[in-house]
Amino acid sequence: MPQFDETELTEAVVASFDDTPDPRLKHLMRELVRSLHDYVRRTGLTFEEWQKTIDFLTRTGQKCTPSRQEFILLSDVLGVSMLVDAVNHRERGGATETTVLGPFYVGEHKPMPHGADIAEGVEGERMYVQSRVTDLSGNPLAGVPVDVWHADDDGFYDSQKQSYAEEGPSLRARFVTDGDGRIAFRTILPCSYPIPIDGPVGELILASQRHPMRPAHVHFLVDAPGYEPLITHVFIEGDKYLESDAVFGVKDDLISTIELRDDAVMPDGRAASGPWHLMTYEFRLKPGRGAAPKPMMAAAE
Amino acid sequence: MPQFDETELTEAVVASFDDTPDPRLKHLMRELVRSLHDYVRRTGLTFEEWQKTIDFLTRTGQKCTPSRQEFILLSDVLGVSMLVDAVNHRERGGATETTVLGPFYVGEHKPMPHGADIAEGVEGERMYVQSRVTDLSGNPLAGVPVDVWHADDDGFYDSQKQSYAEEGPSLRARFVTDGDGRIAFRTILPCSYPIPIDGPVGELILASQRHPMRPAHVHFLVDAPGYEPLITHVFIEGDKYLESDAVFGVKDDLISTIELRDDAVMPDGRAASGPWHLMTYEFRLKPGRGAAPKPMMAAAE
Repeated sequence: MPQFDETELTEAVVASFDDTPDPRLKHLMRELVRSLHDYVRRTGLTFEEWQKTIDFLTRTGQKCTPSRQEFILLSDVLGVSMLVDAVNHRERGGATETTVLGPFYVGEHKPMPHGADIAEGVEGERMYVQSRVTDLSGNPLAGVPVDVWHADDDGFYDSQKQSYAEEGPSLRARFVTDGDGRIAFRTILPCSYPIPIDGPVGELILASQRHPMRPAHVHFLVDAPGYEPLITHVFIEGDKYLESDAVFGVKDDLISTIELRDDAVMPDGRAASGPWHLMTYEFRLKPGRGAAPKPMMAAAE
Repeated sequence: MPQFDETELTEAVVASFDDTPDPRLKHLMRELVRSLHDYVRRTGLTFEEWQKTIDFLTRTGQKCTPSRQEFILLSDVLGVSMLVDAVNHRERGGATETTVLGPFYVGEHKPMPHGADIAEGVEGERMYVQSRVTDLSGNPLAGVPVDVWHADDDGFYDSQKQSYAEEGPSLRARFVTDGDGRIAFRTILPCSYPIPIDGPVGELILASQRHPMRPAHVHFLVDAPGYEPLITHVFIEGDKYLESDAVFGVKDDLISTIELRDDAVMPDGRAASGPWHLMTYEFRLKPGRGAAPKPMMAAAE
């Protein structure tokens, strides 16, 4: 008859996964049981703490919507997302550095023509972004979809604001590289912003007296056939939160110098209305294959 | 500028909790980060596996309703609930053994008079339950609320069946001990049943080729002032799943012999209609104090 002591219990739960047909799932579950049980034993987790944890996880799941992913945010603030990134990208071999996907990726974006303004009607300092996608030898990669997304001047993504939802996507688009591997678009200069703190993850950040700020950045997802999907951000030099990003996502190589210009025309020859910023950043892809991220938004309730 | 390698990243995340005012929260978070990071490094968790995990956790949260707690179920099938129970009840000193709360506790139950039938109109073999609550010396404890709940003959709790929801609680009630510490009620004989497998936890159980069955049992929650709240089940001798409970909840001392009787009257002198089962089980409470469980059901969506 089973009457487990603490160690026997762990071994019994590990053994319950012995018949799992998929060897990787079997390994992941057995190691998960060992890790979780070790944590409970090491901390002497109380019943009340366990209850609070159940409640926290439940509310985290229920905070997710088609445009918000609170579990990714939790993974981000615990550094788990960046660690998954790190263990899967140990050898870059000259390829662009990767960083977290973040909770605001909503799947394939709407394709837009080169030079398009993805911030039409949005307040903020104007910025022109020019980029190029190449292989590790610097050869251009043509016809490659590049998804871009970033926050507005108040620190919100379009998916967070009702007014944007009514008008369709904003500060979010897909560009496809031309024959020379290039894309270009107009937008506004992003600013540093807080991660959403109106949910369970926000409660944790506040209870820990951590600040919720992320340094300003533009997200890029470059997914070329035959190459590893590149999930990254480009950060902006001089941002005061570069050294204390709430989600630990900054890497030196991803910090870009933004030039302030007052040329009357932008690089594509069209007129500028006043001063503008120029962001130039090139992406180098590594050969290989991997799963491109799919949107992981909860179904609308 | 931060550019963390895998180990530096973990230390940076641990350090981000340095200013947490509550020392216990600080300890729990730092240890959680160490455990999670160790798991990711040890398994080399892929980006795709991380995505599946985020999706699994999100769906687990969203499966929770006012009458279903999928995260408790997950904790149960991973043996975490029983381990939390074990580390908090190391020395029983003669007190009744504890076991998991389970996902079907819905908070304080409706008080019913002694002898009441909590299974009126429910099909099944009739059972009379008699119990007594005492301290460690065997002295009766009077006026103590005892919550009871169990599944029906098909293995469902009232909270799982629409028909029950319409008629009010069934197979679930509160009894208060009399001057001699006794309670008694009528119900049906519970049977072994599967944990719910129509959610994410069910997917995991099926993918692992574990069986989902729990041996037959009646839940009891005894909460007397000045004593540790006692959360337990009473199991039924002879059940074929006693040695492989899907949630690892069985303990020798909690297995009860059920007597089959054909007496014309039950112990309280009222007539029996045909043969009936008698369950007799006494609870011994340990002095102390602890948090009695509160219902942790998700708000209705």
